[in-house]
Amino acid sequence: MTSLGDTKAPEGPRVRSAVARRAAGRSLEAPFYTDREFFGLDIAAIFTRHWIFAAVDAEVPEPGDYTTVDIGPYPVIVLRDEEENLRAFHNVCRHRGARLLDAGRGSAGNLVCGYHKWTYGTDGALRYAPSQPASFDPSCFGLKSVHVRSVGGLVFVCLADRPPADFDDVAARIEPYLLPHDLRHAKVAARSDIVEDGNWKLVMENNRECYHCDGHPELLRTFFPTYGYTEENLPPQLRPAHERYLRADAETRETYERLGLPYALIEELDNRATGFRIQRDALDLAGESFTADGKAACRPLLGGLPTPRLGHLALHMQPNSWFHVVADHAITFSVLPLAPDKTVLRTTWLVHPEATEGVDYDLDTLTKIWTATNEQDAHLVARAQRGISSPAYEPGPYAPTEYQVEAFCNWYITRLREALDDD
Amino acid sequence: MTSLGDTKAPEGPRVRSAVARRAAGRSLEAPFYTDREFFGLDIAAIFTRHWIFAAVDAEVPEPGDYTTVDIGPYPVIVLRDEEENLRAFHNVCRHRGARLLDAGRGSAGNLVCGYHKWTYGTDGALRYAPSQPASFDPSCFGLKSVHVRSVGGLVFVCLADRPPADFDDVAARIEPYLLPHDLRHAKVAARSDIVEDGNWKLVMENNRECYHCDGHPELLRTFFPTYGYTEENLPPQLRPAHERYLRADAETRETYERLGLPYALIEELDNRATGFRIQRDALDLAGESFTADGKAACRPLLGGLPTPRLGHLALHMQPNSWFHVVADHAITFSVLPLAPDKTVLRTTWLVHPEATEGVDYDLDTLTKIWTATNEQDAHLVARAQRGISSPAYEPGPYAPTEYQVEAFCNWYITRLREALDDD
Amino acid sequence: MTSLGDTKAPEGPRVRSAVARRAAGRSLEAPFYTDREFFGLDIAAIFTRHWIFAAVDAEVPEPGDYTTVDIGPYPVIVLRDEEENLRAFHNVCRHRGARLLDAGRGSAGNLVCGYHKWTYGTDGALRYAPSQPASFDPSCFGLKSVHVRSVGGLVFVCLADRPPADFDDVAARIEPYLLPHDLRHAKVAARSDIVEDGNWKLVMENNRECYHCDGHPELLRTFFPTYGYTEENLPPQLRPAHERYLRADAETRETYERLGLPYALIEELDNRATGFRIQRDALDLAGESFTADGKAACRPLLGGLPTPRLGHLALHMQPNSWFHVVADHAITFSVLPLAPDKTVLRTTWLVHPEATEGVDYDLDTLTKIWTATNEQDAHLVARAQRGISSPAYEPGPYAPTEYQVEAFCNWYITRLREALDDD
Repeated sequence: MTSLGDTKAPEGPRVRSAVARRAAGRSLEAPFYTDREFFGLDIAAIFTRHWIFAAVDAEVPEPGDYTTVDIGPYPVIVLRDEEENLRAFHNVCRHRGARLLDAGRGSAGNLVCGYHKWTYGTDGALRYAPSQPASFDPSCFGLKSVHVRSVGGLVFVCLADRPPADFDDVAARIEPYLLPHDLRHAKVAARSDIVEDGNWKLVMENNRECYHCDGHPELLRTFFPTYGYTEENLPPQLRPAHERYLRADAETRETYERLGLPYALIEELDNRATGFRIQRDALDLAGESFTADGKAACRPLLGGLPTPRLGHLALHMQPNSWFHVVADHAITFSVLPLAPDKTVLRTTWLVHPEATEGVDYDLDTLTKIWTATNEQDAHLVARAQRGISSPAYEPGPYAPTEYQVEAFCNWYITRLREALDDD
Repeated sequence: MTSLGDTKAPEGPRVRSAVARRAAGRSLEAPFYTDREFFGLDIAAIFTRHWIFAAVDAEVPEPGDYTTVDIGPYPVIVLRDEEENLRAFHNVCRHRGARLLDAGRGSAGNLVCGYHKWTYGTDGALRYAPSQPASFDPSCFGLKSVHVRSVGGLVFVCLADRPPADFDDVAARIEPYLLPHDLRHAKVAARSDIVEDGNWKLVMENNRECYHCDGHPELLRTFFPTYGYTEENLPPQLRPAHERYLRADAETRETYERLGLPYALIEELDNRATGFRIQRDALDLAGESFTADGKAACRPLLGGLPTPRLGHLALHMQPNSWFHVVADHAITFSVLPLAPDKTVLRTTWLVHPEATEGVDYDLDTLTKIWTATNEQDAHLVARAQRGISSPAYEPGPYAPTEYQVEAFCNWYITRLREALDDD
Repeated sequence: MTSLGDTKAPEGPRVRSAVARRAAGRSLEAPFYTDREFFGLDIAAIFTRHWIFAAVDAEVPEPGDYTTVDIGPYPVIVLRDEEENLRAFHNVCRHRGARLLDAGRGSAGNLVCGYHKWTYGTDGALRYAPSQPASFDPSCFGLKSVHVRSVGGLVFVCLADRPPADFDDVAARIEPYLLPHDLRHAKVAARSDIVEDGNWKLVMENNRECYHCDGHPELLRTFFPTYGYTEENLPPQLRPAHERYLRADAETRETYERLGLPYALIEELDNRATGFRIQRDALDLAGESFTADGKAACRPLLGGLPTPRLGHLALHMQPNSWFHVVADHAITFSVLPLAPDKTVLRTTWLVHPEATEGVDYDLDTLTKIWTATNEQDAHLVARAQRGISSPAYEPGPYAPTEYQVEAFCNWYITRLREALDDD
């Protein structure tokens, strides 16, 4: 069943031929999820070449504030410099390569390496290196910078020398959806990192369909499970939910129009470098928030909006993120690969900057549904990883409601092809 | 001492030349036990090509009962279908490859994937896949079946398309030994999985000799340590045990003849695909069971046999199992490779189906000796793995009493040669 | 930023070209610290070809005493034989390769394998192998010996057939410094093994400079932080320490002269196979020992020396050790690689053989400073390993005070070149 010759092939051609023979309409072959060489390609072709969602402005509100993120093997610092500009640097000292700052968030006037006290300004310039001879030129040893930009309070970095050019267009189109919620000035209410036992693409794919949403009883109270379905392929048991959805949809559209909130669906998943999808949509029950009764969990509302019954703004950004913004809070999700079968999911909850925990919101109420949903998804992703690791696995067919999963895979394969052609 | 060039050789030829230069009479070279490439060959040439002991009928007595087993990277389901036939399937959903059933035992009318609810009958047919278009043909997406058969209540699976043809002959010869104990209708009293820190072959080799049995004080109370010795090479300190053995042997043979129980030794370890050894033999002390005093630990006896003083039926099956059947219980051992230096040993204790725990048997008494022996063997296997991992290791000579270890290695090398020639 | 072609190069040339292009004055390229192939080269070219500090005579004072050490993948036994000679053997049974003795220290008349009781004398000869035929020749199966020698109570082993010839010269030059402390007859007061999350070279490099000593507040009470600095490159904040050092230096030199203790610096780090450095030097505060007040923590003094105010004898031996001898105790450090990013640091504290714990010394007081320093260094080494693992790392410049780190790297690269040329 397994050819004895499998392990003998030279490595480069394995990737290229797997990319070349990818069958449309089916899940990817196993090595894309399990093989160390393919994982290396994902880091090189996807994570070092695209804009990666890395942080939120709200993590670094003041000059000197910083937060760290590991993008595959690259430790990165995101900080706000003395002029209040966002900056990002490789978190690697230019002396003997020590990791400059410990993982986590903090605030500092200068960035001081914990090993030999090399000291950098918030602009990355080397300000002080002890005991150097006169010939030493600090200007040669500034921190290596990383492209960084904020879009409506969401911070993206790009490790490439030349980031994808289409991001300007994407930013211009999504920013009007985000700005009314003023995430730039929000407050971080909670952040969690969980390590999922599966490939990063399984984490992304799982998020692109609600075909599995039976496994999310908490989420399904407020989240219409009709995501990805059309009138034609709607399963009968989702019919009542769909009827409720249509009523809620009509009502929220009126509100969006009245408040001037953009809500049209834009879905450009596999025809550009920066694949994305954005939509403002109704929620079930009270229709305000991801809570047990659908009512807002926090006052005041983000951006000072006048009503909580706004459904949710759903944004998906390839390669590694998705977002939900409801009237009272926002949740950001960042997918960070560790190994072929290990991925960090970083989740951040944002609320109005003046909201006080215990007074204006209860943290457990605020985070309960997505914490549960993340855990359920982690089990599903692990289940997928384990089955795909069997040599008996072969790619299977997507259902129509999984069209966004397929679009993600199309985008992914196209991105690999471009990278391999460049090489 | 180590050539600097060692790591530079291309991989395929390393295995082939190691197989080619294998020296008779000595243990195998280190890479067979430590190297990831050689381990891959073991999975491909041994575990996917031979009949693997995977379960017992007693784990799946009723229609819908299932149990899972991982054969290297292959998760497999063994189940009893609606017609009460044994079936085995790859435990991989045909949709996007999720592991279908969680590891363990259970019972189900249908097999429902925990991810998107694809639902299979106990015959493996896809019965229901939600939200598919009319063009979807479920008959293309049945579970992939695995060959399975029961021999006297012991369940073997084979991942190959064409299983070794000689298994029919082996089954026909061992079944008469097994049938009087009616394991097919026995009850599972206990099952344990332990992970040993050594290669699967070290676990098998360790079981093929009693040269190390000084390390098993509990087992040695009832198990004659003369296993593998002949009159000529019997060590002096085993002489008294041998004398007792001869007396017990004469007595049990009379019983076997009287009850019509086959007992002759058949030993065909290295001259066929399905190497095996079977023998009915006396035990020490009361001669009935593996207990501190040698007396049976459970009533009623397996198969309703009329006397407990039956010694033990010892069966060894290559590549991955051995069995002891005594009058009151049976113990099965399945060796399941995880990595070059990690192996699961799964042990299952069987008793008469009407025996009730706490009434007819005490579980601790029943399982004590082999639980202790397994733990002792795990330490020995880890000791072997650690020493063999030294580049200073070189294959050493087998003692005459280790002839079965050598026969196992002969069989193994022959099987690798055949697989490499096929390739 | 990372070439997609990186993983495709054949392996041997990667090491050779990295060695060939090593830039003087800068830290090494990342693969020397992170890559499994380069790690294999370190074992083959460094750890199997040089004299490795493995134990102290005081661990094996009596005939039959033994201690074990793992040098990369090689488990080794160091023991004192019946004639009171030091011996070293591969800790691998010549039968089927089991690890012969468990890790740790002990005492035994014979070395008995825990698997099948093969029994070796303390001279390594196979004395007894059970159940062998007459044709078996035990003289073919003695333990494989390893070169071993003691220098002033410090035990070095060499796995090579032909150890580096220059060790005689090194031994002759360092022994006069060591002998007055009579470490040969000392007592082991404590031993610790910690696993550091970094490459073995980072552990060695970290020890070769005090540029980072701000991170060692406990050590800095007694250890002059001026190590590696010259008058010219002394940082201003070290000026007061240097002044105290000059005074203490003058005083201890007088004492060394009076007692006939050699103290001159010898520094031959990168011009020979057995790179080393030795120096007797003053300590701060009371100047006697590594304690909070600098006073001796143990009486009687090592070697029965008449005064405790002797500063410290600092010895560094490449590839894997350093030593501090103060009047009342000695500390040995052995660096033992486990994996590219895992290293054992074994630390042993020695005191006068008649010193009694709880009476003549308090163990916590004796071990406190270097236990804390080791922990701090382990954090720094992990920090270095993590940063170097970023593809954004590039080798940076050494400060003048790090000249010994550079000398170590020069030595290392020269040793690799010689090994690759031999191959």
